[in-house]
Amino acid sequence: MAAAEGNKLWGGRFSGSTDPIMEMLNASISYDQRLAEVDIQGSRAYAKALEKSGILSKTELEKILGGLEKISEEWSKGVFGVIQTDEDIHTANERRLKELIGDVAGKLHTGRSRNDQVWTEAFFSPLFLHLSSLIEYFYAFSLIEIDVILPGYTHLQKAQPIRWSQFLLSHAVALTRDSERLGEVKRRINVLPLGSGALAGNPLGIDRELLCSELDFASISLNSMDAVSERDFVVEFLSVATLLMIHLSKMAEDLIIYSTSEFGFLTLSDAYSTGSSLMPQKKNPDSLELIRSKAGRVFGRLAAVLMVLKGLPSTYNKDLQEDKEAVFDVVDTLNAVLQVATGVISTLQISKENMERALSPEMLATDLALYLVRKGMPFRQAHVASGKAVQLAETKGITINNLSLEELQNISPLFGSDVAQVFSVVSSVEQYTAAGGTAKSSVSAQIEQLRELLKRLKEQA
Amino acid sequence: MAAAEGNKLWGGRFSGSTDPIMEMLNASISYDQRLAEVDIQGSRAYAKALEKSGILSKTELEKILGGLEKISEEWSKGVFGVIQTDEDIHTANERRLKELIGDVAGKLHTGRSRNDQVWTEAFFSPLFLHLSSLIEYFYAFSLIEIDVILPGYTHLQKAQPIRWSQFLLSHAVALTRDSERLGEVKRRINVLPLGSGALAGNPLGIDRELLCSELDFASISLNSMDAVSERDFVVEFLSVATLLMIHLSKMAEDLIIYSTSEFGFLTLSDAYSTGSSLMPQKKNPDSLELIRSKAGRVFGRLAAVLMVLKGLPSTYNKDLQEDKEAVFDVVDTLNAVLQVATGVISTLQISKENMERALSPEMLATDLALYLVRKGMPFRQAHVASGKAVQLAETKGITINNLSLEELQNISPLFGSDVAQVFSVVSSVEQYTAAGGTAKSSVSAQIEQLRELLKRLKEQA
Amino acid sequence: MAAAEGNKLWGGRFSGSTDPIMEMLNASISYDQRLAEVDIQGSRAYAKALEKSGILSKTELEKILGGLEKISEEWSKGVFGVIQTDEDIHTANERRLKELIGDVAGKLHTGRSRNDQVWTEAFFSPLFLHLSSLIEYFYAFSLIEIDVILPGYTHLQKAQPIRWSQFLLSHAVALTRDSERLGEVKRRINVLPLGSGALAGNPLGIDRELLCSELDFASISLNSMDAVSERDFVVEFLSVATLLMIHLSKMAEDLIIYSTSEFGFLTLSDAYSTGSSLMPQKKNPDSLELIRSKAGRVFGRLAAVLMVLKGLPSTYNKDLQEDKEAVFDVVDTLNAVLQVATGVISTLQISKENMERALSPEMLATDLALYLVRKGMPFRQAHVASGKAVQLAETKGITINNLSLEELQNISPLFGSDVAQVFSVVSSVEQYTAAGGTAKSSVSAQIEQLRELLKRLKEQA
Amino acid sequence: MAAAEGNKLWGGRFSGSTDPIMEMLNASISYDQRLAEVDIQGSRAYAKALEKSGILSKTELEKILGGLEKISEEWSKGVFGVIQTDEDIHTANERRLKELIGDVAGKLHTGRSRNDQVWTEAFFSPLFLHLSSLIEYFYAFSLIEIDVILPGYTHLQKAQPIRWSQFLLSHAVALTRDSERLGEVKRRINVLPLGSGALAGNPLGIDRELLCSELDFASISLNSMDAVSERDFVVEFLSVATLLMIHLSKMAEDLIIYSTSEFGFLTLSDAYSTGSSLMPQKKNPDSLELIRSKAGRVFGRLAAVLMVLKGLPSTYNKDLQEDKEAVFDVVDTLNAVLQVATGVISTLQISKENMERALSPEMLATDLALYLVRKGMPFRQAHVASGKAVQLAETKGITINNLSLEELQNISPLFGSDVAQVFSVVSSVEQYTAAGGTAKSSVSAQIEQLRELLKRLKEQA
Repeated sequence: MAAAEGNKLWGGRFSGSTDPIMEMLNASISYDQRLAEVDIQGSRAYAKALEKSGILSKTELEKILGGLEKISEEWSKGVFGVIQTDEDIHTANERRLKELIGDVAGKLHTGRSRNDQVWTEAFFSPLFLHLSSLIEYFYAFSLIEIDVILPGYTHLQKAQPIRWSQFLLSHAVALTRDSERLGEVKRRINVLPLGSGALAGNPLGIDRELLCSELDFASISLNSMDAVSERDFVVEFLSVATLLMIHLSKMAEDLIIYSTSEFGFLTLSDAYSTGSSLMPQKKNPDSLELIRSKAGRVFGRLAAVLMVLKGLPSTYNKDLQEDKEAVFDVVDTLNAVLQVATGVISTLQISKENMERALSPEMLATDLALYLVRKGMPFRQAHVASGKAVQLAETKGITINNLSLEELQNISPLFGSDVAQVFSVVSSVEQYTAAGGTAKSSVSAQIEQLRELLKRLKEQA
Repeated sequence: MAAAEGNKLWGGRFSGSTDPIMEMLNASISYDQRLAEVDIQGSRAYAKALEKSGILSKTELEKILGGLEKISEEWSKGVFGVIQTDEDIHTANERRLKELIGDVAGKLHTGRSRNDQVWTEAFFSPLFLHLSSLIEYFYAFSLIEIDVILPGYTHLQKAQPIRWSQFLLSHAVALTRDSERLGEVKRRINVLPLGSGALAGNPLGIDRELLCSELDFASISLNSMDAVSERDFVVEFLSVATLLMIHLSKMAEDLIIYSTSEFGFLTLSDAYSTGSSLMPQKKNPDSLELIRSKAGRVFGRLAAVLMVLKGLPSTYNKDLQEDKEAVFDVVDTLNAVLQVATGVISTLQISKENMERALSPEMLATDLALYLVRKGMPFRQAHVASGKAVQLAETKGITINNLSLEELQNISPLFGSDVAQVFSVVSSVEQYTAAGGTAKSSVSAQIEQLRELLKRLKEQA
Repeated sequence: MAAAEGNKLWGGRFSGSTDPIMEMLNASISYDQRLAEVDIQGSRAYAKALEKSGILSKTELEKILGGLEKISEEWSKGVFGVIQTDEDIHTANERRLKELIGDVAGKLHTGRSRNDQVWTEAFFSPLFLHLSSLIEYFYAFSLIEIDVILPGYTHLQKAQPIRWSQFLLSHAVALTRDSERLGEVKRRINVLPLGSGALAGNPLGIDRELLCSELDFASISLNSMDAVSERDFVVEFLSVATLLMIHLSKMAEDLIIYSTSEFGFLTLSDAYSTGSSLMPQKKNPDSLELIRSKAGRVFGRLAAVLMVLKGLPSTYNKDLQEDKEAVFDVVDTLNAVLQVATGVISTLQISKENMERALSPEMLATDLALYLVRKGMPFRQAHVASGKAVQLAETKGITINNLSLEELQNISPLFGSDVAQVFSVVSSVEQYTAAGGTAKSSVSAQIEQLRELLKRLKEQA
Repeated sequence: MAAAEGNKLWGGRFSGSTDPIMEMLNASISYDQRLAEVDIQGSRAYAKALEKSGILSKTELEKILGGLEKISEEWSKGVFGVIQTDEDIHTANERRLKELIGDVAGKLHTGRSRNDQVWTEAFFSPLFLHLSSLIEYFYAFSLIEIDVILPGYTHLQKAQPIRWSQFLLSHAVALTRDSERLGEVKRRINVLPLGSGALAGNPLGIDRELLCSELDFASISLNSMDAVSERDFVVEFLSVATLLMIHLSKMAEDLIIYSTSEFGFLTLSDAYSTGSSLMPQKKNPDSLELIRSKAGRVFGRLAAVLMVLKGLPSTYNKDLQEDKEAVFDVVDTLNAVLQVATGVISTLQISKENMERALSPEMLATDLALYLVRKGMPFRQAHVASGKAVQLAETKGITINNLSLEELQNISPLFGSDVAQVFSVVSSVEQYTAAGGTAKSSVSAQIEQLRELLKRLKEQA
């Protein structure tokens, strides 16, 4: 048996060997080895707590800490040798520790279980960093390009003129909410399960608060049975990540459409475009399409974990092993996607001319209605009157600003010669002075608010 | 045309009528009428702001407020008549307002869009209430039943003895995290979009802070384009709801298994059981199965909304209409499920005898290993030694506490006559004194912490 | 108790009454009453089989059939009164039967369970009908509009000229696969569970083949335990429905983009557009947005059912009750969406002029490369040469067809004066004569194939 | 630039280089290299078709085929060197081909696109093989263990006695439906897109039927635009795979519960169990938990792909790149899971004694009701009477078979002394002779049917 079960952390009561495909399905070492250092830190703290509890002598503690130090070096130099029977990173490190320091290594696991060693690398910092870089570009360009006006769309139909900065800020503002959510998740998941044992707690009176401060967690878990099986931090992180990706998929969709030759508002830099193996003229926004598609990928990870968790009984079940791959894949995906998005935004060329050319007079129909409102007509009737003007112009094949005053007055006698002033895009935009609107003053105020939010976000990173 | 388009809020430029199936698919009045009062409150506040902006005279304002009051009464008395052409609750109320007070009603919509009237009923209070009721029962029973000891399971295999209160607390603690998350969502979604217009903002210099305080929101949205299309509050709420349901599905699974005759730990009250139309003896835990299944239902709503949002361009697109049915269904589901769960827990009969009978000596194998650890053997070797004892007992068809001292000493000479003391369930449990463990002192501390958390939760409700 | 449990089909062993919220969550009558006639048909067949088994006398059978007839009439006239304690449609109909014919009604359920009465209305016919109507319009327009040429896109960037019919056929062909899949699902789910009892089978030697032919099923289920709990037909139907909706979401996305003023390829009829409550000029493609969004809704139903099923133990568990609402909602959604899509397609106005105007010379860069290939240059080099021509034209601010022969010869000496012939859109399109391509002959062959597929599809309906 | 873009298949018109993170996100070579041989086969067939079309001379064809042969050897020997700039397997192989045979390699891609090279390895054979192995064990054990009787459960509560074979067959029968579905998917996805070009078709009059027979596909795609972007085969395969996993999750759940010490029906072999690093006595059914959890993983892949596809415009968009990783992961997961499941089933030890011991007399309550039915009482009343007997026995703390005749007659005078015969488990089971039931004759008939289904399935493999 000893041979068959190799260095597994269990096996005393087993007499048969494990099926190799089962072993392959069971093992997590191929992806959890990125937690090597996290595992070592945990062991270091636990060894100190064991010494405090009297399980280890000072000498034994030093021996163990020395061994762990050596293992840490092996990982960082890339010379740690994972062997076939290393089930997971905990097993691998403990196996190596025994090779290095002998039987005293076997004291490290006293009262500890793999079930209570469930936490992951500190992956938030790069995310905050990449997210704030992206927002920073939105911020910078909304400052610089505040005088660019383009059509705003609803239902992908021209709606009202807006400032380009208003568009940029709309995406930036969504991302600040994502960063706020990430911050909350970071805070809430910063809870240490170590010291919960397999399910019943720690029988050595271990000082969990010591472990907590050694490992730089904010607090310790309240209940051992909950601690060894709750994966709230996984679900929360994946949920927040999915919403972030949904926001980026919206941004990508906008920019893909704006970079068509039909819209012609944008040109992506070559660094974020690819060509066609067949069609020499093609320049494709692959970067944006990849960003958009990753929303599906990240959601798939969330969906997988939620389905795994549904209906599981309490405490640890092996099903939970699906959690880590999901988190790692999503962390890596977010980091890559955020950097590519930042690259795209920072190198985007906009065409002010095409944007302005696209501002057709029909987009001012709301202003035509507001003109009548200001003359005293209830909005609902003014809306109908302006609608009639649009329809008349369409029938005549002209734009509404080319309707004659007489034609307008046939629709409503309230129209006067001052109606011509309605047809100025800048005046239209400048009406939206209420908070959050597209008037210059209002956009500037938003930029200022974003600056504040960015400052706070960077403090988190 | 006027006839064809009935009382739609648009139509001036349209000459054809709408296909009836399209109309049916388009209309949301069948489910959004539960927002009737919310819509009226919004209109009331907006009318006041219009008066402040000079769009309405004092008299007009009073007329409008009077009309709205009347409509509110009609809804509360159940006499409001929805007609075929009422697309949504906004259209229905405005149509009625015009019937009641004439053309001045047409002023109410000035500068406002249906796009910026996107918020929903205050649905959190009942959720907090039902959630805290459920937790309260866990709290109460963990106080009362602290001396009941039963097998704790991992992988659904007997693991270590635990207190029944430890089990109850594990579920309660998870629910307190859900309530904390709900609280955060409530806070973050308390942001008013009104005053964002269709997408560009409000052109009448409306006082959005006034609207905000009138409508009791915490803050106003930052950017109009983001405000009319972000559905973060929907996604966040559904995500948090899904995780809550995942927790309840775990609880349901545990209790379903514990209430089998094979486990025999629990009996559900008749009020939460149903029978079989075919088999007279059956008493089925349908309540728990329904709870478990609703995790799937709620997740389905989340999945639907996320897929709807993926890749949508900026600002309002009709796709967003899927949001409300999802939220309403999940709110109703959670409220029902929480009440049923509370009913189940509050009426549950536990069988102390069956629980105790299930505590087999093998569950103390860890304690046997700890015995050797205390005699100086490294845990890893002690684990192997105890495993051998388990295997020997199995081979002999006896329980490990019936192995002779000689047999044990064959496994390790460290075994002495004091080994008999290992085989006490209460002593075993009482070892787990570290925070979060299953010793009485530790369970009592958890109960105290839960009391604090409950107090905070009830303040939210 | 009798009073408390009303007319439930169980209850002999129960002494407590059911919690009303539990009852509400448990009851399915609000949505399963659309199966009233299906339930009656099942009871009719089962009664006949009971008579054959000797459980019912001829007279009793006639009494029961008479009662069922009466109930069927009540449902069809809309006068059947559902009462509070009717848990589900089975309970309601049996309760009513007893009211009508007395205690003999109590014989009908002998050896039958609600678990083996799991099938649903024959919902496929309308789906096939609506689907074939939609495909028929694609067919008709691809015949009529075969000479319209427009840009084909990949990555939403202009790629190569294509016939409008090629575009229409691409959507039609996808829908024929959906219809093929629906046909397979229809065939496979046509398996009768009745006669499986609660789980163990039927103890009265009932003739299941008789039931099968009476109820017009194709075969009987093989194993009783599987039969009472498998929901493959639900999952299969929802999966196929989701893929159909994915196809329609693609079509909707294309048409939404093509109907922007920037593309200007299409105008939706007023019957499938809506306006804005704020902006008088707006004409929005709400119909297409609704179609697109329903892909999310339908997927949400699939996701819900799959999560419900995950990890359920064998045979009936109440969790399965989530299945019916999902199926009904998806059937209704598909029927509505297919009709709206048919309306949109059948009333669409295309602008041949705008499509042709959009055919820019750069789209012929592949043809320029093929020109060089025909002169003997390997394609890979020809691709690079043509790419250089595109870049040169871009730099000079002209279109590639306006590069001088000299400029082209600087790129490759293989260019001759016959290169001018490359720049004909019709010639370009006519090269694609291989099966499935966009040459007229090839498109015509596709139309013919579609005609055949349509014929087969209509036979299914 | 040439240097910067390395050996990309495009680039003539590009002047900037690609961002490295973008490149990493864009590249698929890390996982699509398993398609190396598939790509080479496609190129081989395409080269032949090019020669037939006159694009390649005989000599050029031979040169290309020779080069491809060499590359194929390099892959099979594991010596093919992937380099940094190999975007995908197509690029890698073409780059290598040029290194080996020079510029003529550049002719291979004429008229071909990466968009129409979308198919995947022939992954079905191993799946059919592993699936039929698993079913075979169910078949074999249902033959051997036909006389073992155990409790059948509904709602996880004891329902009626069944044969163990009935249970085994219920799982086997579900799996045969999965194999039927896989067979249909295999047939339908066997459609060749090659010859569809980038989107418009093939401009060289290539013989697609030749390609089809060379590559052993069943038919060619109908429409080029559909062909380059439809991923029905991915969605169909993932849907069918998810349903298969749902079935296995049900099987796993059953076996996990049956292998608890409380049920005690089963013992897993050591080869499919693992131990605990902390608790020496533990033997955990990790294999079954892994199987159960993979249902979530596979569903997550389906969910991801569906969300990616939702709302994409026609033809190729880079988003589609998410498809391959999903398919590969699911194929690998299914193959591993099916083998582990087969291992578990083939080595399972059942405890006939424990199964029989668990057959409590209350499980015969239905038979008690049927006894009364046979005496002429309508089933509905008989059900109530039997329910009363159950309740009486419960109140008295005895089993129903220990109620005295007098007590029974107090409930119904129809009870006679022959009632004792009701309480035989074998007699109970033997009543279920209707097709699909649990009587021996009926189970034997099912086994025969399964044998037929298995034969057909193995023909597919």
